[in-house]
Amino acid sequence: MINYDPKSWWGLIFKFHKSDTFRRLLPAMTTVAMFTGAVAYVDRDLLPEGLRGTNLVHSLLGFVISLLLVFRTNTAYERWWEGRRQWGALVNISRNLALKCNAYLRLGHPSRPVIAKHIAGYAVILHDHLRGPGKPESRPGGTHGPNLIANSLIREIDRLHRGGDLSGVQYLNLNAELTAMTDICGACERIKKTPIPYSYSLFIKKFIFVYIVTMPFCFVHEFGYWTILFTTFVFFVLASLELIAEEIEDPFGDDANDLPTEELAKTIGANVSAILLRKWEMVSSDSPKHAASEPTASAL
Amino acid sequence: MINYDPKSWWGLIFKFHKSDTFRRLLPAMTTVAMFTGAVAYVDRDLLPEGLRGTNLVHSLLGFVISLLLVFRTNTAYERWWEGRRQWGALVNISRNLALKCNAYLRLGHPSRPVIAKHIAGYAVILHDHLRGPGKPESRPGGTHGPNLIANSLIREIDRLHRGGDLSGVQYLNLNAELTAMTDICGACERIKKTPIPYSYSLFIKKFIFVYIVTMPFCFVHEFGYWTILFTTFVFFVLASLELIAEEIEDPFGDDANDLPTEELAKTIGANVSAILLRKWEMVSSDSPKHAASEPTASAL
Amino acid sequence: MINYDPKSWWGLIFKFHKSDTFRRLLPAMTTVAMFTGAVAYVDRDLLPEGLRGTNLVHSLLGFVISLLLVFRTNTAYERWWEGRRQWGALVNISRNLALKCNAYLRLGHPSRPVIAKHIAGYAVILHDHLRGPGKPESRPGGTHGPNLIANSLIREIDRLHRGGDLSGVQYLNLNAELTAMTDICGACERIKKTPIPYSYSLFIKKFIFVYIVTMPFCFVHEFGYWTILFTTFVFFVLASLELIAEEIEDPFGDDANDLPTEELAKTIGANVSAILLRKWEMVSSDSPKHAASEPTASAL
Amino acid sequence: MINYDPKSWWGLIFKFHKSDTFRRLLPAMTTVAMFTGAVAYVDRDLLPEGLRGTNLVHSLLGFVISLLLVFRTNTAYERWWEGRRQWGALVNISRNLALKCNAYLRLGHPSRPVIAKHIAGYAVILHDHLRGPGKPESRPGGTHGPNLIANSLIREIDRLHRGGDLSGVQYLNLNAELTAMTDICGACERIKKTPIPYSYSLFIKKFIFVYIVTMPFCFVHEFGYWTILFTTFVFFVLASLELIAEEIEDPFGDDANDLPTEELAKTIGANVSAILLRKWEMVSSDSPKHAASEPTASAL
Amino acid sequence: MINYDPKSWWGLIFKFHKSDTFRRLLPAMTTVAMFTGAVAYVDRDLLPEGLRGTNLVHSLLGFVISLLLVFRTNTAYERWWEGRRQWGALVNISRNLALKCNAYLRLGHPSRPVIAKHIAGYAVILHDHLRGPGKPESRPGGTHGPNLIANSLIREIDRLHRGGDLSGVQYLNLNAELTAMTDICGACERIKKTPIPYSYSLFIKKFIFVYIVTMPFCFVHEFGYWTILFTTFVFFVLASLELIAEEIEDPFGDDANDLPTEELAKTIGANVSAILLRKWEMVSSDSPKHAASEPTASAL
Repeated sequence: MINYDPKSWWGLIFKFHKSDTFRRLLPAMTTVAMFTGAVAYVDRDLLPEGLRGTNLVHSLLGFVISLLLVFRTNTAYERWWEGRRQWGALVNISRNLALKCNAYLRLGHPSRPVIAKHIAGYAVILHDHLRGPGKPESRPGGTHGPNLIANSLIREIDRLHRGGDLSGVQYLNLNAELTAMTDICGACERIKKTPIPYSYSLFIKKFIFVYIVTMPFCFVHEFGYWTILFTTFVFFVLASLELIAEEIEDPFGDDANDLPTEELAKTIGANVSAILLRKWEMVSSDSPKHAASEPTASAL
Repeated sequence: MINYDPKSWWGLIFKFHKSDTFRRLLPAMTTVAMFTGAVAYVDRDLLPEGLRGTNLVHSLLGFVISLLLVFRTNTAYERWWEGRRQWGALVNISRNLALKCNAYLRLGHPSRPVIAKHIAGYAVILHDHLRGPGKPESRPGGTHGPNLIANSLIREIDRLHRGGDLSGVQYLNLNAELTAMTDICGACERIKKTPIPYSYSLFIKKFIFVYIVTMPFCFVHEFGYWTILFTTFVFFVLASLELIAEEIEDPFGDDANDLPTEELAKTIGANVSAILLRKWEMVSSDSPKHAASEPTASAL
Repeated sequence: MINYDPKSWWGLIFKFHKSDTFRRLLPAMTTVAMFTGAVAYVDRDLLPEGLRGTNLVHSLLGFVISLLLVFRTNTAYERWWEGRRQWGALVNISRNLALKCNAYLRLGHPSRPVIAKHIAGYAVILHDHLRGPGKPESRPGGTHGPNLIANSLIREIDRLHRGGDLSGVQYLNLNAELTAMTDICGACERIKKTPIPYSYSLFIKKFIFVYIVTMPFCFVHEFGYWTILFTTFVFFVLASLELIAEEIEDPFGDDANDLPTEELAKTIGANVSAILLRKWEMVSSDSPKHAASEPTASAL
Repeated sequence: MINYDPKSWWGLIFKFHKSDTFRRLLPAMTTVAMFTGAVAYVDRDLLPEGLRGTNLVHSLLGFVISLLLVFRTNTAYERWWEGRRQWGALVNISRNLALKCNAYLRLGHPSRPVIAKHIAGYAVILHDHLRGPGKPESRPGGTHGPNLIANSLIREIDRLHRGGDLSGVQYLNLNAELTAMTDICGACERIKKTPIPYSYSLFIKKFIFVYIVTMPFCFVHEFGYWTILFTTFVFFVLASLELIAEEIEDPFGDDANDLPTEELAKTIGANVSAILLRKWEMVSSDSPKHAASEPTASAL
Repeated sequence: MINYDPKSWWGLIFKFHKSDTFRRLLPAMTTVAMFTGAVAYVDRDLLPEGLRGTNLVHSLLGFVISLLLVFRTNTAYERWWEGRRQWGALVNISRNLALKCNAYLRLGHPSRPVIAKHIAGYAVILHDHLRGPGKPESRPGGTHGPNLIANSLIREIDRLHRGGDLSGVQYLNLNAELTAMTDICGACERIKKTPIPYSYSLFIKKFIFVYIVTMPFCFVHEFGYWTILFTTFVFFVLASLELIAEEIEDPFGDDANDLPTEELAKTIGANVSAILLRKWEMVSSDSPKHAASEPTASAL
């Protein structure tokens, strides 16, 4: 993911980032421009009468194509945002697991580093799992990485319960988080493996293609060589929307707009080790300094 | 479901897959073209004065029909996506059930293969149940397949609890997953058995029909034989949207865009047997190799 | 609800079902046509100069009215679909209650038929409750039917718990389903008793009325008697959308598009008695034949 | 809230209810009409050449303003509907609390009337709390009414648990409902205290104002005094949408479209006292007559 | 957040608040006006023939840009509203924690002020955490404020449970609230750290820029110096929508439209100390005066 300042207008307008659709569409736009130019030349200089033009159909259907592209934009964005929410949920349950285990297990308990390792490892392996080439299922060795770690973690917690280190109530309190791990993994796999239905993808691309290809024939009579500018600009807008939607739709790749899953996995690792592996111990249970000082004082 | 690369434009534009609406609409498009041609012939060559044409009404109503079709597209897509989410949830709860039972039951416990068989069988039978001809309820023998398996699984788990193999807390931890199975089955039945209200389906089809049939009469005066192209293209766009929506709306059939429920059922079977039936046993509890090596090391 | 095949185009276009808006709007359409004809006659034949016409305002506002009607369509559809989801949830919890009680209570336990009767009865009485004339609250005798049955069921389950037939964990496992019954009833009452805000309903109807009534005056100058066709068709489209929305909005009546609550109540009754009252007993606990045979075999 | 029959068209079109936007906008509409008339007079009769008019900009921006107003309509409606759902949830949890306590506490238990009083009182005081003038927090005495009652109810239930009248499982079963009360109160406060962001409200009103004020100057050249009708009608439509949205947005006031919270509070009181205070006692536990007779018979 | 009366039209139309987009866009609008004036001057007075103009492309694409901006408005509003809901949820769980602890712990228990301090402190520190400069993670000292307090609170509750002051059931009842704290913190971090995908932000700004810059060239031929007004007004509308969306999108800053998190933190502090620290003690358990008097009387 690219960090940027959404409020800097000039920077965004004139910077042509390598993920910018303008750069990526340049070859196609050149082709469209040359094609339109050829149509205009034939119409103007070769045919005695020229083509009979009208913008009626493009106006009528311009509406449909706009609505379709916004529908496409919406669904792509929703997947991207759902992917983000799932990883946000992973951060939350990782923290909650760590916070609860920190409260439940005495300092220095030998399971603390094991649990910390598993929680942090889950995020890392899920990141790998979702970027893996091809279908996530088919990995060498046939093991499903996230399931492997979830398995270890659930067994560890259950062992603690049987051994008496976790009471029944404490075990119940942990159940939702343990279950959520696999739910998050499944949701990410679902987003990754299920693009928008084939028919829509096919239809939208065909529609854009026919719309752009027929445009010069309808407009060249009225606007002559100006049609080159018109057609190219309209093509840029329509194709950009489809291109961005394609990129956003699978938010777990290496594209410029994809989610910062690696960074999130690191955040989880740092948070979990801070909570479970000593760092806070002196501070938190006895003298929550920051919390105790002015803010709460002013609030109560 | 068709696996495809959404980023390959040329492939998608020029491949005419058998589920492509272009191929399926070809006969209807020919009819529309011939009808428009006939109207144009009568107008141009037979009537002395020709028809008085205007595009006003089609412009006004073009807006309504576009919005309606996008509404249709949206609801159809939402059902498809909800169906996908339900099956994703089935994957998740199957994994969670397997992971938890793996932690709760000792290695070699005789209930392990029974539970694995029921979990995997549920997905398979739900797949059959949803593709079954006609109403899912009315099967020969009158039994409701998914209920039958859910019944066996719930009884098995309850038996383990009563026999002392599952503690109360462990039983509580499994309750959500056992309940979710039937919820998922019910949600899929709901999607399958409840198409969009009859009135909307009727109205949208009537509207498209009248819109297309009146188009030649309004346009032929101004555009002559070009109207054939216009009308056919508009018809292609409107009818395609309705066709795709119809196909997506019930995502459990054998259509090209339908959900890969069979493949998902296989994934579930593979995951569950990997977890509950030995494969991981040596690895997971003692040396989670993949998890323990570099990724976690780098994260902590 | 009408069962129909959404893929049969010709059938849907040329069948004029009694719930079809075309049939229901016929008188109003005739009135609009006659009114427009009168305006055209006055304009053409009586007034020396005729009216000055323009389609500008109708184009501008055509956009607003379309968006409003799609907003209306959307909210009506969402209520209808929420109603369907609530009844789907009722099917699910009824099945889950039956499945769990079947696992928890020994064969031949005297509470089995009592529980089966209450679960099945809840759906039946909820159906009656939602169709009842006027406000559901005010029934002769003053009793709230669904509450009455929920009361009996909850007391029965609690009695079983106190008597030792249900362990604490089993009782906890049933709590969500017992609570959901009343939630579903409340949600259906909410949908039934709260139509779209009065102001919107009022405004949309007034807007359609003024839009249609002013149309002939603006169009008759340019299109003469053709305006009759235009105005009537536009009226048909706008009024149909509002009519359908009205019908869908309260999905618990007897309208053609309303939900098949009676059928769903029967499904629940059949499922529950199949599970709790013997039919499956021989099959399910010992030899889940269908589940055990080929499908699971192929999956594992 | 106004109870009305959404299917009565003529009634709704010709009744000018006092909350009708037509009545409320009449003075503003008169002003707009007079202003447009003045512009037309100056243009027609005073200026030798008249203004140069075009509808281009109003067409272009008519689209933006329509979409914005529908966005406004949508968000306002969603708040209204969320408010309704929250109160529906209050009905549900009140009934569930009553039903469960009825099952858990023996007949004649002294806590029954106390609990009934608190449940019913919560809805009444929440109604007051949301209608209270100004910010709900700052009441004379500084007490937060709903919290006060929730406090009493939670303490009462906890006391029953400690005293042995409620088992642990029964107490757990009540927890979700006890928690939901405060969640509902908080959600209603959120809706009440957070209107749409200031910038949007400001921008939409400014946009409508400029749009309407510039309209006569652009249209008067072409349409003369007819512009008065056009401008007034467009103003009526745009301002009505904004007016209705404003009214719907805070659904807890005394406006004609606001939610029937008082009536709902009464329903809750009636339901709770019917369940907990005797009325059903003879009927429900022994002979659930209505449930047992024909409906269930036909279902099983 | 600005408190305002959404029903005061004149105030809102003529007040130019410092957050008003009109004030903030004034310099840019001047530039656009001057640029358009220059184009008009060149066209009118320098070029013999003038430019050939058409509004066709701007009409076609005006549709796309409007839909895109409404998509932008929608997503920005949804984030803002989700942020509000999360803080509303924080209010709810804070109250619920306080209410439950008040019921569970005897008056004067030494943990009461500790718990009150932590609950109130959480909201305060979350407010600081979300306004902190740059990335919330990287604070001096490396501690994550909200986690620190959540840690203390969870440990305190667990300590009470182990010490016997909280029964198992009471501990279970508190678990959802303790978990929700961290979920809320994570959700707010997610909203803060994930703006709309870079590509969309880039594309929308580029699109507006090209749309506005090309406008004079297309319109100046037909409308001359009037184009200045047209272009500036269209620019004002499009840029305002983008500006407002940018501001709303991150609702935790100091912008005029941002959420009143500070005020909410104070409300939480006041509510919690009112519940846990004495103020209500005399009233609530024995004589819930307000609740007992007229409202409940009338309801029962």
